[in-house]
Amino acid sequence: MTNTRGELFDPLFGESNVTEHLSDQAWVSALLEVEAALSRAASTVGLTDAVHAATVTQVAGRLSLPGGLDVADLGQQSKAGGNPVIPLVKTLRTAVAGHGVPSSAVHVGATSQDVMDSALMLLSARAGHRVLADLQAAADAAADLARLHRNTPMAARTLGQQALPTTFGVLAVSWFTGLDGARSQLERAVSMLPVQFGGAAGTLAAVYPHGMALADALADELALARQSVPWHTTRTPLATFAAALGVVAGSVSKPATDVVLMASTEFGEVAEDTPGGSSAMPHKQNPVAAIAARAAARRVPSLVATILSTMDHEFSRAAGAWHAEWETTTDLMRLSAGAADRLATSLGGLRVHPEVMSRNLDITGGLILAERVATALAEHTDAARDIVTAAATSGVPLDRHPAITEHLTADELRNLLDPTQYLGHATELVDRALDARTTGGHR
Amino acid sequence: MTNTRGELFDPLFGESNVTEHLSDQAWVSALLEVEAALSRAASTVGLTDAVHAATVTQVAGRLSLPGGLDVADLGQQSKAGGNPVIPLVKTLRTAVAGHGVPSSAVHVGATSQDVMDSALMLLSARAGHRVLADLQAAADAAADLARLHRNTPMAARTLGQQALPTTFGVLAVSWFTGLDGARSQLERAVSMLPVQFGGAAGTLAAVYPHGMALADALADELALARQSVPWHTTRTPLATFAAALGVVAGSVSKPATDVVLMASTEFGEVAEDTPGGSSAMPHKQNPVAAIAARAAARRVPSLVATILSTMDHEFSRAAGAWHAEWETTTDLMRLSAGAADRLATSLGGLRVHPEVMSRNLDITGGLILAERVATALAEHTDAARDIVTAAATSGVPLDRHPAITEHLTADELRNLLDPTQYLGHATELVDRALDARTTGGHR
Amino acid sequence: MTNTRGELFDPLFGESNVTEHLSDQAWVSALLEVEAALSRAASTVGLTDAVHAATVTQVAGRLSLPGGLDVADLGQQSKAGGNPVIPLVKTLRTAVAGHGVPSSAVHVGATSQDVMDSALMLLSARAGHRVLADLQAAADAAADLARLHRNTPMAARTLGQQALPTTFGVLAVSWFTGLDGARSQLERAVSMLPVQFGGAAGTLAAVYPHGMALADALADELALARQSVPWHTTRTPLATFAAALGVVAGSVSKPATDVVLMASTEFGEVAEDTPGGSSAMPHKQNPVAAIAARAAARRVPSLVATILSTMDHEFSRAAGAWHAEWETTTDLMRLSAGAADRLATSLGGLRVHPEVMSRNLDITGGLILAERVATALAEHTDAARDIVTAAATSGVPLDRHPAITEHLTADELRNLLDPTQYLGHATELVDRALDARTTGGHR
Amino acid sequence: MTNTRGELFDPLFGESNVTEHLSDQAWVSALLEVEAALSRAASTVGLTDAVHAATVTQVAGRLSLPGGLDVADLGQQSKAGGNPVIPLVKTLRTAVAGHGVPSSAVHVGATSQDVMDSALMLLSARAGHRVLADLQAAADAAADLARLHRNTPMAARTLGQQALPTTFGVLAVSWFTGLDGARSQLERAVSMLPVQFGGAAGTLAAVYPHGMALADALADELALARQSVPWHTTRTPLATFAAALGVVAGSVSKPATDVVLMASTEFGEVAEDTPGGSSAMPHKQNPVAAIAARAAARRVPSLVATILSTMDHEFSRAAGAWHAEWETTTDLMRLSAGAADRLATSLGGLRVHPEVMSRNLDITGGLILAERVATALAEHTDAARDIVTAAATSGVPLDRHPAITEHLTADELRNLLDPTQYLGHATELVDRALDARTTGGHR
Repeated sequence: MTNTRGELFDPLFGESNVTEHLSDQAWVSALLEVEAALSRAASTVGLTDAVHAATVTQVAGRLSLPGGLDVADLGQQSKAGGNPVIPLVKTLRTAVAGHGVPSSAVHVGATSQDVMDSALMLLSARAGHRVLADLQAAADAAADLARLHRNTPMAARTLGQQALPTTFGVLAVSWFTGLDGARSQLERAVSMLPVQFGGAAGTLAAVYPHGMALADALADELALARQSVPWHTTRTPLATFAAALGVVAGSVSKPATDVVLMASTEFGEVAEDTPGGSSAMPHKQNPVAAIAARAAARRVPSLVATILSTMDHEFSRAAGAWHAEWETTTDLMRLSAGAADRLATSLGGLRVHPEVMSRNLDITGGLILAERVATALAEHTDAARDIVTAAATSGVPLDRHPAITEHLTADELRNLLDPTQYLGHATELVDRALDARTTGGHR
Repeated sequence: MTNTRGELFDPLFGESNVTEHLSDQAWVSALLEVEAALSRAASTVGLTDAVHAATVTQVAGRLSLPGGLDVADLGQQSKAGGNPVIPLVKTLRTAVAGHGVPSSAVHVGATSQDVMDSALMLLSARAGHRVLADLQAAADAAADLARLHRNTPMAARTLGQQALPTTFGVLAVSWFTGLDGARSQLERAVSMLPVQFGGAAGTLAAVYPHGMALADALADELALARQSVPWHTTRTPLATFAAALGVVAGSVSKPATDVVLMASTEFGEVAEDTPGGSSAMPHKQNPVAAIAARAAARRVPSLVATILSTMDHEFSRAAGAWHAEWETTTDLMRLSAGAADRLATSLGGLRVHPEVMSRNLDITGGLILAERVATALAEHTDAARDIVTAAATSGVPLDRHPAITEHLTADELRNLLDPTQYLGHATELVDRALDARTTGGHR
Repeated sequence: MTNTRGELFDPLFGESNVTEHLSDQAWVSALLEVEAALSRAASTVGLTDAVHAATVTQVAGRLSLPGGLDVADLGQQSKAGGNPVIPLVKTLRTAVAGHGVPSSAVHVGATSQDVMDSALMLLSARAGHRVLADLQAAADAAADLARLHRNTPMAARTLGQQALPTTFGVLAVSWFTGLDGARSQLERAVSMLPVQFGGAAGTLAAVYPHGMALADALADELALARQSVPWHTTRTPLATFAAALGVVAGSVSKPATDVVLMASTEFGEVAEDTPGGSSAMPHKQNPVAAIAARAAARRVPSLVATILSTMDHEFSRAAGAWHAEWETTTDLMRLSAGAADRLATSLGGLRVHPEVMSRNLDITGGLILAERVATALAEHTDAARDIVTAAATSGVPLDRHPAITEHLTADELRNLLDPTQYLGHATELVDRALDARTTGGHR
Repeated sequence: MTNTRGELFDPLFGESNVTEHLSDQAWVSALLEVEAALSRAASTVGLTDAVHAATVTQVAGRLSLPGGLDVADLGQQSKAGGNPVIPLVKTLRTAVAGHGVPSSAVHVGATSQDVMDSALMLLSARAGHRVLADLQAAADAAADLARLHRNTPMAARTLGQQALPTTFGVLAVSWFTGLDGARSQLERAVSMLPVQFGGAAGTLAAVYPHGMALADALADELALARQSVPWHTTRTPLATFAAALGVVAGSVSKPATDVVLMASTEFGEVAEDTPGGSSAMPHKQNPVAAIAARAAARRVPSLVATILSTMDHEFSRAAGAWHAEWETTTDLMRLSAGAADRLATSLGGLRVHPEVMSRNLDITGGLILAERVATALAEHTDAARDIVTAAATSGVPLDRHPAITEHLTADELRNLLDPTQYLGHATELVDRALDARTTGGHR
């Protein structure tokens, strides 16, 4: 009881919305759902009695309720066989026996891995939809910012240095593009999460000749994708899902990093609407949501590596590589969902300060448009580039440097040094990116 | 000269076939190809003269030839600006100047990252096709084994223990499924590798209003996918590609691991046709190709993590996260291609010993079919399971244990203990998996 | 309540012994212990009243008891400020206010990171000692096996192939060496875990000129190492600890892998004393403890990478890199301790079958000693090596091959082919390794 | 020839200084050195003739010269046996045969792994010293900055926000502490890199009873640490070394990240003395050295994970895990050395702008000292904290807010708001950290 985890840090890292699908209790429920679905599926191919299957479903449902089953005790019993399915099946068989259901109506033709894998796919589908929703919220918030600020000039920074003017819309739409692309990939991966059913050796021998039909019926009962063949040791479906979550986390880390930088005292261009305070320093305005998003996102890539590196499942059931997936996969979902959730909060409430963006554009005293001035000057002199380079390091503003004003009028220079006049395709890029969103009807 | 890498280990790890697309020289060529394509693309939108573009193409082609350019010197010059494009553009401009081409005809509206990223996409597309071909070869070899051995009985091992009979075909087809699925994902990722073109700040300001058209023309010239918008700091395309390579490596590691185990002296079920010898021990038959495949594959997941964890590109060009991608991506391709290549060699020449597989099926003295005997016995006695469990630990073979022979005849037992009679859907699974291959016309 | 984790999987992966030091409740207790120790330390330098400090200690102790504080509520409150210290300090100040303790007596001169980091070090020290004990148990079990089997011949396998004879003692002592070396490294890292105390900006300004003395007093109160200077963004201590845990996990994975292989049906050389069963297959004897150890160990390296890759803490407190450490570090300890615990169980109860080892030595029909025969034959003929190589592939046993028996007598051959006569320094190596153990008095 | 790597990117990432110890040629030389040393060591225990050993040494030295041996051909030949030692020994034996040296004088009692591992240790020791030197240079530069700027006020930033004043010395000394600590750890790891010598099965059977003496003699010849016992599949020494390199990279990433941030246009507090330019934007001053250091450092943690995750070497020689170490280890050294080298360049030439640091301290209009004002105000009113918090969000500067000026005089406020008066133990911390440096005589 006192040795559990999740209550202290899940809210902070945005995971509380998804935790209900990934907790110990959620695992137990999913395992029981798979067993119940298997009994029902078996009845559709004539291997169990439909009434028995209904009873199994009812009893499994009751055991799934909080308190229906002693989870800590199940955990202790799992130690002996190496997974919770063995004791759970025993418990379920005992519980239905009282209702006249024979043990043969439970766990029909299945091996533990069938149930564990199918349950993991169920959890993944549910938590996956939560991640998708959180991602959608973050992408929508980014799209809103992009639309609102498609014409808000700001300095584009490359390698940490102000480079040229751009708009905040262009930056925000790059956030949107990343988030929306990741969402689209994850959606695809979630829709392909397959049922697992192969029996003890992957040949479905115990239920021959009903194996194929039974596997498909089980998939349908669970609303999972049908398997082509059992994938006990061919972990592509899981790896693809994990990889998609890795891309999700990466797509969150970029905007979260930008927000943290732009919210810094020296940049001052954005602030979160409910920033974190400090007990000691009343003036602190920490962009806590973006910080938490980054923190969660930074933990994801290594977990993807764990899933990929444990794809070397030997023979027909892996001795360790399989077991390493369980918590890693749920951690992946918790952190991805949490990162997306916290980013959605950050972006959804972002206070943007166009006036500070504008002020920051002036820091270089026009140097941010040096390229443009050089191009204009080149129509008057071959030494244009050298002149501007010299001016740039002289400390004299470009519009007052004699070698420049010799050729360009004050009016021309005012125009050339106006950042809003050198935004290129900024507006068009925002519109194009928003139009290219991968889904239509979500908002 | 003496400080280079690649000659000593690339052949061993199967990378020699793909190295030509990933070497220093290949990088330089790709960078020059992008510059040449950009000049041509610029001429299609009227920003450069077509004759000039043709000259740039010609000169770039000449510089691309081995020796056309001092790569080591270029490397030294790259240090100052942080990437090789800056000195390369200078070299190219100087080289074409002699042919009357103005510097404005080279690197039109581009920033270094446009050229680096597009070149990396070019290399990725080329090396990616090499990975695909190697994967196809490995998948084909697995499919051939599965077809040939769809009825070859062998022991299914779960958690290292003999579990039930299966066929070698079922195992081999699981290899095929993983490899074919990974190939399909990678094919998709390769086909989506986009051009990069955004100019200094990602707004295409320097070539306004021709930016969009120019970007598309550049993509077409390079036979890369068109970009929706510039993706300087939205690294989804690269991350997706890297993740697909991670799945590739995982799909290689599974069969490679199985081959190493099955080739061990105690299993003795397969051997490579050109195993590695030992200077000291003349009897050694090391499955060197599978070993090298595993070694290469095991290095890939961490590299995927690097790409995912460096997706946090800040603002409009990342100060480090971007640079970290270059060699990591080429290493990913080298190792994935190498792993697939060595696995193709291993599987393509695999000597299978059905008689040893058959002999191994006898190790447990029938216990591998204990489940089946218990099921049959259950029609005679309620104590069936207990009887068989007791027999299993008694040391007495199942077909001679009195508590069993009391109920089942010698004939019945002979049949029940025949592994070839308990293969379930094995054959059907092989056929279904081969039919489900993701591509049709490749063989 | 129903959204917590830990009860279902911790026992299986061996983590239940260490979980008490790493749970939500353990975190809360550690945070309160740090606050209490800080009040006491402050009283030693005259910044608080000793009576107040005693009250703080008492109240903090009461809040630390299970139920003393609503952990879920604290988790929710942590969201606003980005860590649990802010609301916890508020709670503590309120609780002591009733006893006449001013708020200035709590959290004296501290910043949230001081308390979080010091608490993490406390948890790490406690859980670290648990890992050390588990490692010691595993190392002791390996040492016992090595001692007992220092003369038990078995086949040495290289690259999966039988190579030459060795003893099981040599293999077991290689397990011991790895485990003992990792333990020694971890012991060093644990002993160096430092207190953290720097105040809001790392200058200890709020408690000047008592900062240095206060920091040392706090370290002493907590029995942590003293800091040289605050290390808010210099994460070497944590990284060193994480790296040591990575070496621990690696040292566990080697013997766990060997046990799984040796326990396989085809090898049959060892078995766990309480192997896992199967509901379907009564004969299964799965080495569950070794499997769980491998599974836990395989998850560790990626987590080490997370800690190393988040060492880039910017300025005086990192926006994300810091927060990413909390759960990652506790996961590292859980998994390392669990892996060591399960391995200790596996090795401690390992049933070794010398007769099977001996039988396996005969599989090659003497080829395992081909090198030795060739050496002896070389005294009779220059073609010795060629003769033996030809014999090795002929299928005729070496002691019956005419080209060999022509030169060597049956007696000579019997002796040459006796594996127990070609064990080199095996016994000596075992003794030397056991003597070199890094600690003396532990057993 | 044209398929090699290293010339294009090594200079940029700072690796050119260490590449000579890690190239193909360096590998070949190290392998030959080990063979030569082994022949000499064998002569010291009477297993070879000293004259023969001298000839082997001479011939090996000749083959080590650039061009002495066709590396590409050796690479091709390595493919068959799975490592370069097999063909190299053949070449060496042939080469010495012409000088009357019998083949038995070469590779005495050794297995390929003895030679590969010992060569890798040789390379690691040499490249490791290069990393140490680069780290020392970076640490020295940080120490110089800390000393010079121990009293230079700057804003401490926590979570991206200005928090309180500190000095640049305190920040720089945190860089020093991290670098120096990492250096110290690496030095220890390098000094412990052991020779490898176990023979075909790790029992030293072929050279019994001279095995132990021979192994020690070999270590002495190579100036490597002596082994306790062979460590063919106990990879603690390598893992410890890799982990130390991971800490090195982390210790580089922190200052590199700070430099990139402080050099950004908006911060403007430092600049590199030879920043990178841009072909398009003449004003750009990119901190290229710090950027390259970050890029190199960010690739290291994943490689550490690869080494840790491949510690599961099975039995007496691993089929893949071993091979995966070779290039990973050399990559680790290249990148660590490169990162340290580029950071040394960055810090060694860092231009610090105290006046900008001072100006940035004014950005918040005194809010950075709000905590201090509140403390002073608290002596006059119980509402001190609320007053300051209200003032902080009012926009009115603290020294002009009526609720504050009511209690504190202008003089008092001027003093309270002077950042140089609230630096706590800053100076002392710098001195203490510099005094605590782990080594004395290096400078």
